[in-house]
Parts: sequence; C-alpha cells; structure tokens
Amino acid sequence: MEFFNVLTASEVHSIINKLAEEYAIESEEIHLMSATGRIVSEEVTAPLDLPEFNRSTVDGYAVISQEVMGASESMPSFLDCINEVAMGEIADFLLKGGQAVYVPTGGMVPEGADGVVMIEYVEKLDEKTILIHRPIAPLENMTRIGDDLKEGELIVSKGKKLTPYDIGLLAGAGIHHIKVYKKLRFAILSTGDEIVDLEEPKKLGEIRDINGYALSSLITELGGEVVKKAIVKDHFDTLKEETGKALDSADIVLLSGGSSVGTRDYTKAVIESFEGGSVLVHGISIKPGKPTIIGRVGQKAVFGLPGHPASALIIFNQFVKAYMDHLLERPQKEFSVTAVLLGNVHSSPGKETYQMVQLVQDEEGWNAVPFYAKSGMMTLLAKASGYLRIPERTEGLMKGEKVKVYLLKEVDI
Amino acid sequence: MEFFNVLTASEVHSIINKLAEEYAIESEEIHLMSATGRIVSEEVTAPLDLPEFNRSTVDGYAVISQEVMGASESMPSFLDCINEVAMGEIADFLLKGGQAVYVPTGGMVPEGADGVVMIEYVEKLDEKTILIHRPIAPLENMTRIGDDLKEGELIVSKGKKLTPYDIGLLAGAGIHHIKVYKKLRFAILSTGDEIVDLEEPKKLGEIRDINGYALSSLITELGGEVVKKAIVKDHFDTLKEETGKALDSADIVLLSGGSSVGTRDYTKAVIESFEGGSVLVHGISIKPGKPTIIGRVGQKAVFGLPGHPASALIIFNQFVKAYMDHLLERPQKEFSVTAVLLGNVHSSPGKETYQMVQLVQDEEGWNAVPFYAKSGMMTLLAKASGYLRIPERTEGLMKGEKVKVYLLKEVDI
Repeated sequence: MEFFNVLTASEVHSIINKLAEEYAIESEEIHLMSATGRIVSEEVTAPLDLPEFNRSTVDGYAVISQEVMGASESMPSFLDCINEVAMGEIADFLLKGGQAVYVPTGGMVPEGADGVVMIEYVEKLDEKTILIHRPIAPLENMTRIGDDLKEGELIVSKGKKLTPYDIGLLAGAGIHHIKVYKKLRFAILSTGDEIVDLEEPKKLGEIRDINGYALSSLITELGGEVVKKAIVKDHFDTLKEETGKALDSADIVLLSGGSSVGTRDYTKAVIESFEGGSVLVHGISIKPGKPTIIGRVGQKAVFGLPGHPASALIIFNQFVKAYMDHLLERPQKEFSVTAVLLGNVHSSPGKETYQMVQLVQDEEGWNAVPFYAKSGMMTLLAKASGYLRIPERTEGLMKGEKVKVYLLKEVDI
Repeated sequence: MEFFNVLTASEVHSIINKLAEEYAIESEEIHLMSATGRIVSEEVTAPLDLPEFNRSTVDGYAVISQEVMGASESMPSFLDCINEVAMGEIADFLLKGGQAVYVPTGGMVPEGADGVVMIEYVEKLDEKTILIHRPIAPLENMTRIGDDLKEGELIVSKGKKLTPYDIGLLAGAGIHHIKVYKKLRFAILSTGDEIVDLEEPKKLGEIRDINGYALSSLITELGGEVVKKAIVKDHFDTLKEETGKALDSADIVLLSGGSSVGTRDYTKAVIESFEGGSVLVHGISIKPGKPTIIGRVGQKAVFGLPGHPASALIIFNQFVKAYMDHLLERPQKEFSVTAVLLGNVHSSPGKETYQMVQLVQDEEGWNAVPFYAKSGMMTLLAKASGYLRIPERTEGLMKGEKVKVYLLKEVDI
C-alpha cells in the first residue's frame, strides 16, 4: 500500500482555499424578483437618498416644533392650516411661522417644517385654524432625506447571500437588476457495484443511492445546481469516462461511495489519469470522514467523499461547503449555539471528532443531547440539530460542559 | 371614528389558529429529487428494515467474535478463510467455527458471524489460513438488520419540512415519491397612490414598491408561491376588484400599505364588501405593527399589513408565518438564541414590543446589539439578525440582561 500523509482539518482548509482562489465563477445579471438566496458578485451602492424627501411617519400636521413648544390641552397652540399634502404629491412651498399643513403617513413634509403632530392631538377650530394640544420634539414623527440610506452608501457587499430584507432595500433604492454569481454546478457520481437507483429493482445485498439524493438536496438548499447525478459501477474505465463528462459540465465534481480500499484506489487513479490531475488530500484526521480524497483536474476540484451517508454529508458540510463559500467570496462566518451538554462524549485520539447532537430547549437555554449510536446511521443525521467539533487534542467532553453546537442548516446572521 | 378593540398578540394568535383550521390545503405527490424544503402531508413509515442485511462497516474479515477473544500480535487466532463476499452480493452460507470470510465495507456479513476484524489486524498465512492479531467485541464493525430503521418505523412526520437528511433517509428506504402540501399561493397587493413599481418612472414624492418585493422574497424563502403581485391605487372600486381577483387565485391575500387612516378604512371596507367577508382583527397592541388588519372572506384569510416596510415584514414574520405553519400543520417551535444585551431597550407601555438587534459573537457566546434608530427603516432590518420580544407588562430591558433573540431567518432544529 502506498503511504499517504493524513492531513489535519485545518491543513485541508488551507488547500481548499488555495484551490478556490484559482477558479473563477462567472456572474450574471438577474431581476430582483428571483434574486432571493443568490450571492451578490459586486458591491451595490445606493444610487439616491432614501427617503428621497422628508417623510411623515404618521397622519398629522407638519409644523415648526418650536411653535408648539409648551402646547397642552388647557393651553393649545393656534396655527393656520394652509394646505393639505396628498400622498405622492410634492409639497413645493415653504412652511412659515404660524402655519401648519396636513400630511398623511408617508407623505412629504414641506421645507420649513421640522416635525409632525399626530392627528389625535389636533383639533379643528374652523376651516383655517387648528389647535395643537401637545408639543413635539424637533424631527418627531418624520424621517429626513437620506435617514435610511445615503447616496453612495453600501447596500450589499460582494459575497452577500440576498435576504428578503436586502431585496426590500434594493427595491427601495429602485434597483431592479443585480449582478450575482452563477449557481455553482455540481456533478454527483455515486460509485459502487451495490448502489441501485430509487426506481430500479433491488436485490438483497444491494443498497439505494442515498448519497446521490441527500447531496443533491444539500446542494440545492445551499443555492447550487445539480447538473448531473449518476450511479457508476466500480470499474476504472467507466468511472474515468463519467468523471470526464462530469468535469465538462460541472464546476465541482463529487464522487461518493467507495469506502472500501479498492474503490478509494479507483478514485485516486481516475483523478490522476487526467491531464493536470493530482490528488491533494488523501485522508483527513477527523472522525467520521477519514477516507476523504480531494483532488484537482486543471482548475476544478474533485471531492472523493466517504461512502457512509452520514460521513459523506458531514464532510460535505465541513469541506465542500467551505470550498463553495470561498468560490463565491462569502465571508467565513460560522453560526453556533451555546448549549449545556447532557451526556459525556468521547473523542478519537489524534482526530478532530464531529459528534452529532440534538438541541433541546428549556427555561435556561439550550441543551445538547449527544447521539451514542453508530455513526453511519442516516436516522441520526435526520434527527440531529447539529454537531460538536472536538479538537484533536481534547480527550472528550463531560456532561454539564458548555459546548458550541454547529447547526446542520446554514444560518446567516 | 369607529371604535375598534385593539387585541393582544396572543388573542390574535388564537384567531389565526382558528382561521387556519377552517381552510384545507391540498396535497400533491412529487419526486424526492424536488422535495427539499417541502412540507410532508402524511406520515411516512419505513417499508423495510434499513439496513436490509447485516452490513460490514469496514474492509475486513467476518468472524465469530468468541473465536478471536484474546487474539494478539504474539498469540494470533488462526482461521480458515473460506470465501470472499463481493459488494452487492448475497452471502448465502453459514459461517461456522474456525472460519472467516472477507467482506468489504458495505458488504453483507454472513449468518453465523457476529463481527468484522479490520484488514489491518489480519495477516495471510497461506491461500487458506489467516492470522487474527486483535480481538473484537460482539457486533463490532457491523450494523445489523434494522439498526438504522425498522420496518414500520416513522421516517418523517406530517408537517415536517424536508431536510437533505430526511431526503437521504427516504432514499435509503427506497421511497421515490412523497405526498406534500401544495405550495401556499399568495397574492400581494401594494396599495397607495404614491407606490411605483421598479421599472416605472418615478416622481419626487413617490416611492418604490418595497413591500411587494420584500414580501415576495420572504414568501419564496419560506416555500410559498407568489401568484400575483400588483400595485393598486387608493380607490375603493379598484382595490375591491383586485382583491376579488386575488381571492380567486390565491390561498392568502396580503394587502400592504395603507398606514394612513384613509387607506386602512379602504382595506376594512373592501374585506367587508365581499359575501362572507368580515374583519376579525383591527389593530394589535404591539410595536411596531399596531395598524394591522386581519379579515376573512369565506374560508380565506386577508391580511392588511402596515405600510412601513419594517413593520410589514415584522408582522408577516409574527402572524402570517404562524398562519402558514398552522395551515401546513407544522409543529409550532420557535428558535431563539440566548444573548447578552449590550444596551438598554425601552418598551412601549401596554404593547408587546419587537426590538431589532444584531448578534455579535465573542468568546463567551452571543451578544445582542440593539438598534436605536427609527423603526421604519429598511436598512435596520437588512442589518438585523433578529429581534427581542418584550412583553406588554415589562418596562424595558437593561444592558447586561440575558435575552432571547428570535432570528429573522427560519431555523428548524
């Protein structure tokens, strides 16, 4: 057997980052209506002030605040109601001393006025005169030009995954098309003579293509696109041919399956058989997921994921997702929840260990219930909220300790 | 002005729940490949055991564990290697005393064997004989029939939003089609004479349709479908006509805009003008979002959201989302992060107050930075991670207090 240097998780991350820097993802311009969850590929700044005019935030009377200072029920201020500003209308006049003007919520506050008295505190004396029963502070019940957003101010930064709130802000600024990275295209090849697709007849001893479906789902959820999903027999020539086709159509190729030594050798041999093909990682000192292979063919990454579904998905979340985020220039932030561990957890000496847990809330906050059953089980992942990461040099974690739980679901905050 | 009973948030939730119980969402059967994020409409149980056979989790030799008890480097156990089980092949023989058989990772462990010795601890003496250098515990390195999932066991419950891990489990069980609720169909009408769509020319005093785009994005993100999005002038007949069309094509109608008293009156009048139309909620004692209207036309809900974008989106997250979850029979779980408050927060007496915060992580865990600027601002929501909910009777929260932050993004755990 050839000797392979098993790398640590952080060494693997450095390799992945370098790999991502060498591969460029193109941009496309899309309409705001379909931009939710897409990754912005250029900084977007405000083309104008928001609001573009001084706006009332209530139904009421625009006034000069100093003139209603000290107004009360028993001692109201008297003002001339000179006008009424309709919604969407320009208030093209200057409010002078002794004057007030009706402005609806969202309407324009005229020059001169520096606040709005809510209609509840105003009484109409006659056609022209109103009584103000309460004082207002300067700028009360109004927003000024540029309060929300100033012309030239950054709206969304490069690498931002667009939320409904970003979409609202962009709409407010009148931006209807936006440059985003094209969706990352994935090809997934599930390798193994025993793997059978969902609608095919299956014999005892064979198993369904769990990884193909679970990985497709994960990729879709993260905003990627699965351009090819296939099951490939454990045969060098077939695997090479299918990998070649995958490299033609996808940005990233995932080979999953092959936890047995034989299959792993195929994955390695296939990667190296291409021009510009080389294996960069052959084994990672983590648990689960040790038999992971990462290679490149030219500028493209090829991941050889473990065959165990749970391991494959954990490796995807740890390393493939990090690669995706680098390609899309997303900020590397990890969301975790602090929880009290409800059981002892053992780690594997010399390996970073990922321990699946379920989060359970009580009055005090979150608790993490570790799963003790065998790691290959799909049911565990389906029930898990997230996982703990136990560093290589930590022996294990004790019941009652405070731990960080990384969620299985992506959370941007 | 008519007198309206302003309701508390929890009173409104009771009304919403009752309303949801009266409206049925149809199901449809879809392929697993497109089921991510969809809501399951019936319980799904395992049609078979998973795994269906005793499987090896390593490359190695299946043995009877008792026979290698005490095996060591200096005192190995000698066994007859009688066979080799290929991947996907049925091991249709019984392993007897003194025998071993090679099984690859994922391969079938034959009857009689109760564990697998990893290949690393096995030495081949000759064609037939192997030396075992380590003992194994019973059931070591194998999973037994039904370990992951037993026939008849619940895989996903009704109302579950399908994750990639559920998809993997369903694929493993050979389930390729699944019944899910049809996507909830929304119509969004942004009302107001001053509202202008993104690609139309805009005059000073008018504003862009923020709510239409932000709400569409939110609905899409939550798995709903926007079947109609329109801008409607403040005119009773037009609003009635458009609302009628919306009720024909959508499950849920959102009217947004109309924070001014006049527009709110239109919303109310329009709802009541339909046969079977009535207003159930007219004002909620919360901040922001007080001028919220909830009505019904027949079995369908009509929400009159505030015009302020930030308020409209908060109301959507609090009440429309709760209505959606009830319709889809999703369990009502709320995800929150415990954080230390980094500033004092004031509440509005007699109102449940929603205070936007940004989450910032340090060594100790999460901190919540409150935003003090005016609540109508869209930039705040775009920057916010989530919000605090301050109960009606709480005066406010002090810097240093532990608070629960509800995230703007839906998190299922």
